Amino acid sequence: MKVKVSRKAHFNAAHRLFREDWDDEKNTAVFGKCSNPNYHGHNYEMVVSVYGEIDQKTGFVMDMKKLKELIRAEIEEAFDHKNLNVEVPEFKNLNPTAENIAVVIWKKLRPHISKDKDIEVVLYETPRNFVTFSG
Amino acid sequence: MKVKVSRKAHFNAAHRLFREDWDDEKNTAVFGKCSNPNYHGHNYEMVVSVYGEIDQKTGFVMDMKKLKELIRAEIEEAFDHKNLNVEVPEFKNLNPTAENIAVVIWKKLRPHISKDKDIEVVLYETPRNFVTFSG
Amino acid sequence: MKVKVSRKAHFNAAHRLFREDWDDEKNTAVFGKCSNPNYHGHNYEMVVSVYGEIDQKTGFVMDMKKLKELIRAEIEEAFDHKNLNVEVPEFKNLNPTAENIAVVIWKKLRPHISKDKDIEVVLYETPRNFVTFSG
Amino acid sequence: MKVKVSRKAHFNAAHRLFREDWDDEKNTAVFGKCSNPNYHGHNYEMVVSVYGEIDQKTGFVMDMKKLKELIRAEIEEAFDHKNLNVEVPEFKNLNPTAENIAVVIWKKLRPHISKDKDIEVVLYETPRNFVTFSG
Amino acid sequence: MKVKVSRKAHFNAAHRLFREDWDDEKNTAVFGKCSNPNYHGHNYEMVVSVYGEIDQKTGFVMDMKKLKELIRAEIEEAFDHKNLNVEVPEFKNLNPTAENIAVVIWKKLRPHISKDKDIEVVLYETPRNFVTFSG
Amino acid sequence: MKVKVSRKAHFNAAHRLFREDWDDEKNTAVFGKCSNPNYHGHNYEMVVSVYGEIDQKTGFVMDMKKLKELIRAEIEEAFDHKNLNVEVPEFKNLNPTAENIAVVIWKKLRPHISKDKDIEVVLYETPRNFVTFSG
Repeated sequence: MKVKVSRKAHFNAAHRLFREDWDDEKNTAVFGKCSNPNYHGHNYEMVVSVYGEIDQKTGFVMDMKKLKELIRAEIEEAFDHKNLNVEVPEFKNLNPTAENIAVVIWKKLRPHISKDKDIEVVLYETPRNFVTFSG
Repeated sequence: MKVKVSRKAHFNAAHRLFREDWDDEKNTAVFGKCSNPNYHGHNYEMVVSVYGEIDQKTGFVMDMKKLKELIRAEIEEAFDHKNLNVEVPEFKNLNPTAENIAVVIWKKLRPHISKDKDIEVVLYETPRNFVTFSG
Repeated sequence: MKVKVSRKAHFNAAHRLFREDWDDEKNTAVFGKCSNPNYHGHNYEMVVSVYGEIDQKTGFVMDMKKLKELIRAEIEEAFDHKNLNVEVPEFKNLNPTAENIAVVIWKKLRPHISKDKDIEVVLYETPRNFVTFSG
Repeated sequence: MKVKVSRKAHFNAAHRLFREDWDDEKNTAVFGKCSNPNYHGHNYEMVVSVYGEIDQKTGFVMDMKKLKELIRAEIEEAFDHKNLNVEVPEFKNLNPTAENIAVVIWKKLRPHISKDKDIEVVLYETPRNFVTFSG
Repeated sequence: MKVKVSRKAHFNAAHRLFREDWDDEKNTAVFGKCSNPNYHGHNYEMVVSVYGEIDQKTGFVMDMKKLKELIRAEIEEAFDHKNLNVEVPEFKNLNPTAENIAVVIWKKLRPHISKDKDIEVVLYETPRNFVTFSG
Repeated sequence: MKVKVSRKAHFNAAHRLFREDWDDEKNTAVFGKCSNPNYHGHNYEMVVSVYGEIDQKTGFVMDMKKLKELIRAEIEEAFDHKNLNVEVPEFKNLNPTAENIAVVIWKKLRPHISKDKDIEVVLYETPRNFVTFSG
């Protein structure tokens, strides 16, 4: 009996879309106002889902309290009220598009969730733009 | 031409996470404040989806009015304004976690929807915690 | 320059509508299924607003971090995962309708917020039913 | 590294459920008040998703600005503030159920998005009724 | 102890912005695509609020079940799945702008709610456009 | 017949809470992580409301298309994808708290809306924190 359990969380951060190996003109041509050198920001909302068998003892796929705490420790602590380009090591050489942020979140959570379970990350950059990564 | 049609519905209920074969100490250790013997409650919101071929005559996968009525008769009637542990027979010996409630909803709907169609149940225990079961 | 600042919070609780001085028949006649003796429950969502002058030093009417912490300490701690009728002293002799819960929340917060500021409490019993109390 | 990127958009339109080869009585029997000859209408909200590899140069699966513009040009321009039955050629002989509208949207977008990417259309007829088509 | 109680409801309808005493050119100049002669439509969502003293016997300002039923009988029954211009007598000679629809809803409800209570109607024409009328 | 008409809009921006006349230690003591020198950001959502008489000719308090365009020209153009502290002149010497941003928005719109109408600005810094300014 496999079920997907999902938990919403959020962090607020600054970023810009930017490649260091491109000059300003090219960054602006490709990324438009999202490449503003002074940064802009978002309320990132995420849904982290874990898919696996229901544990017959607890009735849980995964204890939501533990999932909530894991997201807080691994993602919110690292990203919240941060400048993603400047302060988050994963984006030193990786453009912080929504796509890449979702992949980074997934990779940061993967080692902490048992291997027999699948993980999905949905990341809302705005209420109108969002991305989904399932590994 | 297969399409998934989805209908939102809701019920308000009391519950506690609890196993009769565990003593109070163990129930509290595993389930925390969710095991409060006096119960707590939720506005459960659900999305029931039916996946199948579009009927060429009606343009429907399934008439939404009938799906709405089916959810009302089978789920809302049984769960709304109830104490899940005390008053809903399916949870007499089954811990009413979100995971188990979603499975029970799916099983209660399955006999009423034609076999060539798949069913998915998403159950929101809160706006921040939800589960998905697809059989 | 007066501004209203608002903070959302939530608690999950069980309750029933019930007057001890009425018999079961009268309670059911007036309150319907909301009077189920086994309780039902809700995800109560609330918006607490504080209206007052912007402090010229901070640019705040009230520090949102302090408002968040005040709601946690005074309301969530007291109501979350509780049975309002059984475990919350304010409702020992007061029917826990949405109206009365909003008034109780307002009274619990009032002593902790400076007198030159007004308070408003919006309490959602469900996403479709809510009440507003402003003192 | 495959990711699904999603963009929300909307259009407001009138429609009725109706088959020209059925008489009024049969249309009403099958479609109820949705077949009102004077039409009714909806705020259709849609989520268009594109699934594919992250472009290593841009960090995008697809530039959201281009997806937004594509939806505007192909769907909003054609459907917004229109009567679907009367003014949209695709529904001249096709009953504009949510299912059929989602399929039409998918078919109108498919030629404009590169073949190595999958498309999914979620169409909300109301906040409580929605459909999903993935090709 | 005065409290405002609020109830959400909805109806789906077709309309066009239009004055019979203006020619087509003028209607289009003023109302743009909202004046399309073939109509367009909306999922109108409304919040009806009643403001008054809490009844000490029930703990209610007004029984939400009765407010829900009143909205159903007076508003949903009259407006849902209708063409406002063609089928709703109040708009025979009144342009069905959101402003005018809110006033009409308020006037239809006023006689059914006791005089010592105030009424407020919020009408969402879309999730992005809404109006409020308080008498 | 006075009605309040409301329009939702949004902008994404970076900011930090900061007073130039305070040293870093004091800024951090008062504003916490919101004072991060590298900035963080938000999806600011706003609701701009205009309160006044319904024009008997149009049925409008104010043409929503014009209000939408006014918000775009005066607010979105000035704030969207900007760093509020660095790039928006109004915040050169004004701490960009939600309270102060709402007041600035109100002041920027006031000259463009006729004097017999009142204006209200609700600004969501996050879905959980928001402020209201009515002049």
